[in-house]
Order: sequence, then structure tokens, then C-alpha cells
Amino acid sequence: MPSAAILIADGTEEMEFTITYDTLVRAGVTCCSAYVPDPLDHDGMKKSYINGSRGIKIMFDAVLSAHEFRPDSYDALIIPGGAKGAEIMSKNPTVQGLVREFIEQNKIVGMICAGSLTALTSNLSRQPLTSHPSVKSRLENHFEYSEDPVVISGTLVTSRGPGTTFPFALSLVELLCGPEKREEVRGPMVFPPNTPF
Amino acid sequence: MPSAAILIADGTEEMEFTITYDTLVRAGVTCCSAYVPDPLDHDGMKKSYINGSRGIKIMFDAVLSAHEFRPDSYDALIIPGGAKGAEIMSKNPTVQGLVREFIEQNKIVGMICAGSLTALTSNLSRQPLTSHPSVKSRLENHFEYSEDPVVISGTLVTSRGPGTTFPFALSLVELLCGPEKREEVRGPMVFPPNTPF
Repeated sequence: MPSAAILIADGTEEMEFTITYDTLVRAGVTCCSAYVPDPLDHDGMKKSYINGSRGIKIMFDAVLSAHEFRPDSYDALIIPGGAKGAEIMSKNPTVQGLVREFIEQNKIVGMICAGSLTALTSNLSRQPLTSHPSVKSRLENHFEYSEDPVVISGTLVTSRGPGTTFPFALSLVELLCGPEKREEVRGPMVFPPNTPF
Repeated sequence: MPSAAILIADGTEEMEFTITYDTLVRAGVTCCSAYVPDPLDHDGMKKSYINGSRGIKIMFDAVLSAHEFRPDSYDALIIPGGAKGAEIMSKNPTVQGLVREFIEQNKIVGMICAGSLTALTSNLSRQPLTSHPSVKSRLENHFEYSEDPVVISGTLVTSRGPGTTFPFALSLVELLCGPEKREEVRGPMVFPPNTPF
């Protein structure tokens, strides 16, 4: 059964986190949310939950820097958006090292919304990528910037915002579990007729 | 500023809860998540968080039965799905009484997915309604059952599943804050082109 480590921090966009985690679990992917502490929050390491970008408090499954957490044992690494959460993750050297390691090992890395900033801070090579429009100006000179809802470049999967999280998550399901599983998961979610994903 | 009480329980579908709460907060609606205890869980009243249908743990803002929580002070009451969570809510007499009170006072009641079962257990009158397909057979003889993604009948707003939660939440924004606010909130979410809501 494939597995995914989904990063989470104070300020993470809770829809992007939740839709991705929930959809992957529906596909049978073992998910673990891993907390990335805010270096400015001195009580950060005592916490058991994050404050999302719109005030929803979500408990996490593991702490990224904890000895017992082995991020390299997962098949995919996911970085959600939310301005503050993505800022924390993109500046974290452990996250940057993991992104490079996953890409070098041809393992899936998903980034959505402002989460795509981590492609820049991790020094990934110039390649097709998208992000939330609000951070486009920081990325467009370094990547082949696209405005497609989901951009797949090798094992790097990027997307735009809350409104593209369902196609982002379903694309991850397809890459990890195959196209049949994508359709199996999509049906019971009851998307409106003519939904383009 | 309008306000909404959003019910939550063990087994609540975390995407339906999170998309609705987050989208309403983006529109400036004051949101409060109110925990409905599982009567079979003897430690239920000591909890500070719920276990969602796909394993995400979400902390709640208030407890439905607590003296200090005044559900009648809110402008809207929202009941998300998730089979187990909706079962707990639909069988709760306080929830049933609140649903009738809100409808009698022409205040908005939103139900999505299996959450629509609460229309039945609250003895709401025969009217247009939708739900997740998995509970259609329990509702179709009692209501004018529709398969539209969002059904608005007076102040009762019903919807189908995770895939219809964005149009459900945006419809609630429009009813509480007007059509301009709906568009203002929708834009930065970056839905794919040709998304039908």
C-alpha cells in the first residue's frame, strides 16, 4: 500500500491539507501529517495541533524533526499552501533536503498554492510548474510557469489553490494507485455534472 | 457580520466540514464548530477534538450542550455528512429541536451528504431536498428528492457530498452575504476553467 507524508504548519490552508489527506486515504494510501514548527514560536515544539489559515485547529500525526519519524520511508511528500504555513515549510532546511531527496529518488512530491515556493527554495531545476497566482511573480523567472490547474513534471506535481485541490489530489491518487483507483475514489464524491476533472 | 454554527462529531466528513467552515470565514462569516457527543462514547464529554471519517483529528470550538454555548444566537446552522457523524447528529434531540427552530424563524439550515438525514428525523415538511446517493432511499418517500448539486428550499439548503461542498458553501455565502461576496470569495480559490459553480 503506498504512503504519503503530508506537511502541516501554523497557517496551513486547511482545505488544501484536508482534501488531499482525505482523498488519499479514500484511495487506500497510508497518510501521516508531519508538523513543521514555526522557528519564531518558542512553544512550537510543545504543540499537538496547528492553527489553520482560517482558524480550524487540526491535530498532527507526527513531528517532522522527531527521531521516530522517518519521512524517507514514505512514497510521496506533499506540501500544502496557506501563505504563512508555506513560508514556514519553504524556509525549513529539513523540508528543502527532503524535497531534493524525493525528486532524486524519483518519488512523488506534490506542492499546491504557495506550497510551490518550496520548489524555489529547494533549488529544483527549471521545469514546468504552477502555483497560486499570488506567488507567481516569485516563481515565473525560475520555472516554466503554467496556469494549468495541475502540472505534472516527472515526479513533481504542482497545483494552484483550494479550487484545484480535488484534481490535484485525484492526480496524486492516479500516480500512486493507477487510473482505475482514481475513478473508484471520484465516483462517491458526487461532483456536479460537467465538472472538468 | 453574519454567523454560523457548524456541527461536528466523531465520523464527520472532514472535507465537508472544512470546506464549509473555511469558505464562510473567507466571506467574513463568524464560524463556531459545535461538538455533538456520541451517546455510546462514555468519554465523549471529556474530548477536545473529533476523529473525522478519514482519520483527521479536528479540535472543536464549543460543545453543543454546554450552558455557555447559545446556538440560537447564530444566523445559520450547518450539518455536514460522514455516515457516523451524521447518524449521531440526526438522532440528537437538541439538534432536531434546533433545526425546527431555525426553519420556523426563517434562518438558514444547511445539510450536506448524509447530513440531510436530519431533515427526516427533525420532521421537516415535504419539500425539495438532496443528499448523498447512499441515503437517497431513506429520504425519497418523504421529500421532493432532487439530484441537483445544491437544492435551496426556503431557508433549507441541501447538497450531495465532498464534490458538491464548494458550490454548497458558496451558496451559503450568497444567502448570508450576497452575490458580490460570493464572487469575491470564489476568485482567489482558483477553480479550473469551466468549473460549473
